[in-house]
Amino acid sequence: MPPSQVFLYDTTLRDGTQAEDFNLSLTDKIRVALKLDDLGIHYIEGGWPGSNPKDEEFFSEIRNYALKRAKIAAFGSTHHPSKRAEHDPNLHALVEAKTPVVTIFGKSWTVHVKEALRTTLEKNLEIIRDSLAFLRPQVSTLFYDAEHFFDGFREDSEYALATLEKAVEGGAECLVLCDTNGGNLPSFIQEAIKAVQERFPNVPLGIHAHNDSDLAVANSLAAVEMGASQVQGTFNGVGERCGNANLCSIIPALCVKMNIPCLDPEDLRKLRQVSRFILEIANVPPNRYQPYVGRSAFAHKGGVHISAVERHPSTYEHIDPALVGNKRRFLISDLSGRAGVQRKAMEFGIPISSKDPVALEVLNQIKELEHQGYQFEAAEASFELLINRAMGRFKKYFELIGYRVVDQKFSEDGDPVSEATIRVRVGGQEEHTAALGRGPVNALDNALRKALEKFYPELKGMVLTDYRVRVLPGKEGTASKVRVLIESHDGKERWGTVGVSHDILEASWQALVDSINYKMYMAEKNQEKKGCGEK
Amino acid sequence: MPPSQVFLYDTTLRDGTQAEDFNLSLTDKIRVALKLDDLGIHYIEGGWPGSNPKDEEFFSEIRNYALKRAKIAAFGSTHHPSKRAEHDPNLHALVEAKTPVVTIFGKSWTVHVKEALRTTLEKNLEIIRDSLAFLRPQVSTLFYDAEHFFDGFREDSEYALATLEKAVEGGAECLVLCDTNGGNLPSFIQEAIKAVQERFPNVPLGIHAHNDSDLAVANSLAAVEMGASQVQGTFNGVGERCGNANLCSIIPALCVKMNIPCLDPEDLRKLRQVSRFILEIANVPPNRYQPYVGRSAFAHKGGVHISAVERHPSTYEHIDPALVGNKRRFLISDLSGRAGVQRKAMEFGIPISSKDPVALEVLNQIKELEHQGYQFEAAEASFELLINRAMGRFKKYFELIGYRVVDQKFSEDGDPVSEATIRVRVGGQEEHTAALGRGPVNALDNALRKALEKFYPELKGMVLTDYRVRVLPGKEGTASKVRVLIESHDGKERWGTVGVSHDILEASWQALVDSINYKMYMAEKNQEKKGCGEK
Repeated sequence: MPPSQVFLYDTTLRDGTQAEDFNLSLTDKIRVALKLDDLGIHYIEGGWPGSNPKDEEFFSEIRNYALKRAKIAAFGSTHHPSKRAEHDPNLHALVEAKTPVVTIFGKSWTVHVKEALRTTLEKNLEIIRDSLAFLRPQVSTLFYDAEHFFDGFREDSEYALATLEKAVEGGAECLVLCDTNGGNLPSFIQEAIKAVQERFPNVPLGIHAHNDSDLAVANSLAAVEMGASQVQGTFNGVGERCGNANLCSIIPALCVKMNIPCLDPEDLRKLRQVSRFILEIANVPPNRYQPYVGRSAFAHKGGVHISAVERHPSTYEHIDPALVGNKRRFLISDLSGRAGVQRKAMEFGIPISSKDPVALEVLNQIKELEHQGYQFEAAEASFELLINRAMGRFKKYFELIGYRVVDQKFSEDGDPVSEATIRVRVGGQEEHTAALGRGPVNALDNALRKALEKFYPELKGMVLTDYRVRVLPGKEGTASKVRVLIESHDGKERWGTVGVSHDILEASWQALVDSINYKMYMAEKNQEKKGCGEK
Repeated sequence: MPPSQVFLYDTTLRDGTQAEDFNLSLTDKIRVALKLDDLGIHYIEGGWPGSNPKDEEFFSEIRNYALKRAKIAAFGSTHHPSKRAEHDPNLHALVEAKTPVVTIFGKSWTVHVKEALRTTLEKNLEIIRDSLAFLRPQVSTLFYDAEHFFDGFREDSEYALATLEKAVEGGAECLVLCDTNGGNLPSFIQEAIKAVQERFPNVPLGIHAHNDSDLAVANSLAAVEMGASQVQGTFNGVGERCGNANLCSIIPALCVKMNIPCLDPEDLRKLRQVSRFILEIANVPPNRYQPYVGRSAFAHKGGVHISAVERHPSTYEHIDPALVGNKRRFLISDLSGRAGVQRKAMEFGIPISSKDPVALEVLNQIKELEHQGYQFEAAEASFELLINRAMGRFKKYFELIGYRVVDQKFSEDGDPVSEATIRVRVGGQEEHTAALGRGPVNALDNALRKALEKFYPELKGMVLTDYRVRVLPGKEGTASKVRVLIESHDGKERWGTVGVSHDILEASWQALVDSINYKMYMAEKNQEKKGCGEK
């Protein structure tokens, strides 16, 4: 019997970062956690405090934020065979993480007890019970991850069940059954869960699947069909080896296909955006073929499909793409696009009607720019400037006459030297100056600021807080197009801008210019508002 | 009851090429077909002869090759409602393809009959029977693809079954049930198949699944568990929208986990190589996380894991990677000590003892470089060069005297111009040259190649296939450190190199230089190997 509700347990920050080539800094982890909280994920596993200092810092830092809905979980192992629970530094680190949830994992598979833990089967049972019993009075929610449960169940089902028995004795509120090596088939997952339910009819179960057999989503759903009420996974399925169960695929299957509540429909619409946000943060290119949230997931080739899809979308679409914040794609200008522009403009306080030809112009410009590789999800300031330009409301703060950036290296071991010269015109005045930098982009940035601060001293209060470069897909090697995303901050506001070019300096230039223009534009906008308020 | 054997039906050449961004020329298709034949795939769907001329050419061209085991299939639709079967050009094109197998698809879903085919339910039944009956005497093997079968079965199970009835009457030897929109869950797939088997107990069944729900592999295996003996899919899961069922995941599950014969074990060992071959032909970068055949599929990161895996591989590996031609890898970022360096060096064929002081030196260098932001997971070539340097085995192929890169923009809307000059010394000779580029990195790349190709013409065969830039965490804005990862390819091998600097040109330079050095070093290494063999 499927459960009446499924609780989502995200481990992108812990198991996800075990993936080859997927790394998050402390700041990244905080930003991802806040995003997951905003989406409505129930549990966010932040790390393993006993295993590395970055994870400890995360737990101490995240306490400064008031989460809306999510509970943070700390992850760790049962105590070391040579120590007693109360003297085990790993268990103490879990308590010190001061999280509302602690998830502790133990061994279910006899081979692992002997070969990895190097202790006796009997001792392992004690270790599990004692570790949980030690934590129980000190933490508010306690979950148990039964590592390698399914492999253990195949090898020695009685022993695997005995380990769960000890976890329940120790106070586990949920038994999370793990397919750690990702090798099991859905039919076996269901067979094993049946045996667990016969033994523990009243204990909530969870599932933690890996994708080594391309079955992590199927195995998770198979467990839910049997009654599992907690699903552990990661966004975009990142994780060790072939990854973890992909929450981006599991969540819509639960909500839309199995009608099991886990996210509010309104939150479900953010799914694609959150998926992309996390990839942007980790600077990993999205997989266009990704189910539900990928760019190709609802892409229809022209002709016969289109009219059928328009009259009866379900003829060629397994779900309505809007449910997960994705879009149907084919080449027609649809009204929802214009309405979208209008909605966005309203957000910025720019009144515009969806029938206004400006809305269509903006829409066409965006399509063209996106085709070129621009992306506005993390660059709303550039988007706002674009709308203003289309409406003829854009004021020009300066004009570029020209720049030149020189980067030289004088010997094999010598440090490179970067210098930029720039000429700009502000009002009637021309400024011609130069600056050095740590690398050519920095030199250009320094020169531009030096030239403009003379006219606009308020730019001194503005700093760049983030600078990201993404090489766009293509087969052009060092001639590939790059997208530069810049985040700026002036002590009050933060804003993002974007630039795209084959030339990284040109792309950086576009984003820098937008960033400076936005700063000036905001100052005027606030001036106007103030004016209104004082009337 | 699972069948005693599964027949593999590959549609990479037909449904696979419906994927966005996956294209094959006629020559490519022939090469892929020969490779699939060599692997032991039973049926190869070559295209839709009625729909495009390239597919017709394929069928005429492939007849010039003597295939060892595979049978070629031509694909097409039932006849047009306005025509009689014997006058339908599409059916004639199928006959003229002269393939041993013809696969014909028809409508199972009432909505599609009315909305897409625009005919009556009764007429559709006739169309199916007549189309197959027309083909039956003219082709040696005839399969029927029941398009949208599962969606049709949900909507009107009686009608869906009636369409199959007509296909059997027309002479279909196998009923292939299609999840065309990819929206169904494994439990429903099994429920529908059960009903089909009750109605047609003696007709072989097949499954054709799409991956829109991330369940195509699970749905295919669920069908086989029920008794389906034909599995249709594509290599690497390419296909329309989110792709088709991935044969690279299905084949090993059948052979290794379900013990259902479909490929000989000796052929199974070619799986990874065939997967990569097809991606190379299509010029699509491989997905490192792909189950079974991906580069990360058997990559171990954690320190604890490594020692356990070495003693008992099954503790952290769901199958022996060699069964599918893959390899275990230990990730460099977590080399737990000197033994790790030794192990990695052995992987590269460099003999080194863990007691050798060189191992300690390498370890210290790696720690220092990782601290600076280098990362060797995707840059094993840089790592191999580093070991060689530490061992004093590194040969210098050229020396940099200096470079200068200039990037200029002459007006606000003007395109930037990038130029690089370079001086290098090779042997006693100096080369001083210059090149333009699309952006400063490309200009530097072009100038370096221009300078060196004179001395090393083999560099002409080497191309950059991937160029990635990651801004390292920090609050330095445009002065942030960047890490550049480059992947190069010379038609046979692919290798990754890395560079880190505050200056993106310097970071790119480091990775480019390593890439070129590695190419030269490999050529010598292969020369040495050849020398040994000839003794």
